[in-house]
Amino acid sequence: MHTLDIHSATTDQILSLDNIRSVLIRLEETIVFQLIERAQFARNAKCYVPGGFPELAEREGWTSSWLAWFLKETESTHAKVRRFEAPDEYPFTNPELLPTPILAPVTYPQLLWKHAVNVNDQIMKFYVESIVPGITRTLGENADDGHYGSSAIRDMEVLSALSRRIHFGMFVSESKFRAAPASFIPHILTPNRDALAALITKPAVEAALLVRLAEKAKVYGQDMDRPGANAEDREKERKIEVDTVVRIYKTFVIPLTKEVEVDYLLTRLEGVDQRQVEEMLRTDKFVG
Amino acid sequence: MHTLDIHSATTDQILSLDNIRSVLIRLEETIVFQLIERAQFARNAKCYVPGGFPELAEREGWTSSWLAWFLKETESTHAKVRRFEAPDEYPFTNPELLPTPILAPVTYPQLLWKHAVNVNDQIMKFYVESIVPGITRTLGENADDGHYGSSAIRDMEVLSALSRRIHFGMFVSESKFRAAPASFIPHILTPNRDALAALITKPAVEAALLVRLAEKAKVYGQDMDRPGANAEDREKERKIEVDTVVRIYKTFVIPLTKEVEVDYLLTRLEGVDQRQVEEMLRTDKFVG
Repeated sequence: MHTLDIHSATTDQILSLDNIRSVLIRLEETIVFQLIERAQFARNAKCYVPGGFPELAEREGWTSSWLAWFLKETESTHAKVRRFEAPDEYPFTNPELLPTPILAPVTYPQLLWKHAVNVNDQIMKFYVESIVPGITRTLGENADDGHYGSSAIRDMEVLSALSRRIHFGMFVSESKFRAAPASFIPHILTPNRDALAALITKPAVEAALLVRLAEKAKVYGQDMDRPGANAEDREKERKIEVDTVVRIYKTFVIPLTKEVEVDYLLTRLEGVDQRQVEEMLRTDKFVG
Repeated sequence: MHTLDIHSATTDQILSLDNIRSVLIRLEETIVFQLIERAQFARNAKCYVPGGFPELAEREGWTSSWLAWFLKETESTHAKVRRFEAPDEYPFTNPELLPTPILAPVTYPQLLWKHAVNVNDQIMKFYVESIVPGITRTLGENADDGHYGSSAIRDMEVLSALSRRIHFGMFVSESKFRAAPASFIPHILTPNRDALAALITKPAVEAALLVRLAEKAKVYGQDMDRPGANAEDREKERKIEVDTVVRIYKTFVIPLTKEVEVDYLLTRLEGVDQRQVEEMLRTDKFVG
């Protein structure tokens, strides 16, 4: 079960670590495959530079990049149907530029405490500076194939999956906080980032993730277009390198998720009634 | 090489059967994976019914379906950056509803003869009536999980890949026509659909395709979330059935591609100079 029925799922179901893990694990496939889809096209560096397409400034008054324009257009459509009211969806576009929903709000159960976490700027920066050059290198160090629309559509898919994966860390934080509030509260009040990070970090889980991810990248990235070919030949024509995918998680996705998890926890008690905080400290039972 | 540099590719390169086949083969992975992505969500039949979301009529004046609205919005963005000027891209939305490009036209080499082929209505019908119910059955015969935006976004990805795959048949027709015009011309003039279909059909190629596709569906659809599990257990938790994918190609993609190929050929001589037609018939060399 990777998605819950939003009509009927309860807070406890959504915040169960089993559910959260199944979503995160399923997103690995999406991220690996969307990286492969993007890697079909050249780096197309022009798409990421503000003003790279003068027509966008002349005709649309848009002075940022080609990709940022695609995101603004697409996220505008999605905002109309309330995508960003979901607690696991965050826009790359400045929310002031997005329209208001045309649908009545869904009443989601109260899952996350109010917060101001949105690391999409960091995701975009790493994506443009490191991920795109990394996965497109085999087509030429700074190649341009002219498929700007196709590559931007794949960029958005990768970014959207990465953003959902990384911000989902807040569900991990909330779930763990509810399970043992007395362990978290002192470090939130101090505040102590390292202690909070230690509470949510499971090295064995991270190690297992990287093994599983390498396996997925190995399987998805192989050349399956010649069914007769032996395993060695299939490896020669890989669509993406296993190491590249693992490195993206190891140096970027995992650390940034942890940052999100800690950032979220740091403001978790803002506005919580003092007596509730004391009761949670005393009983180690979540009160909400 | 699955994509050509649109700045520098020549007509001969684009229309080489090797290039066309590599595009078609690469699209198999995209189609299989996007089907898997869509299959995460329930059938959500409401999204395909005109008037299923009254808010779209009230707020946007849109009386067709939720999915058709997503397509119209998304294709409007893409039309602005001239997606549908490419000879392998066809919109699902009525072109009269789409904006004109804001970018200057790309000068594509003359690849296809002028034609009026667009089978997206047929693709949509089969998708809604057969593909969606088929790939979502394991979540419940007529289930609804409320993830209407997420499922519509995946719908668009599947439809776009299927449409590109099927319309790409016209490149096959053009390529084969140019290679042996004297074989085609009499059957175009008669006209004789069956004879034209026979000229472009390669049963061995189709058989190999279905074998390769089954292999891809087998590999991509397996459950890779438990690296310790043996092959048998991985099969139990499949994301998509191999047979379902093979059936989509066998009963739908391949026959409709053939229809597109023949439809294109039937008007291939309209407006061609009579002397050129005679020269091609006499010499069996393409004149264009």
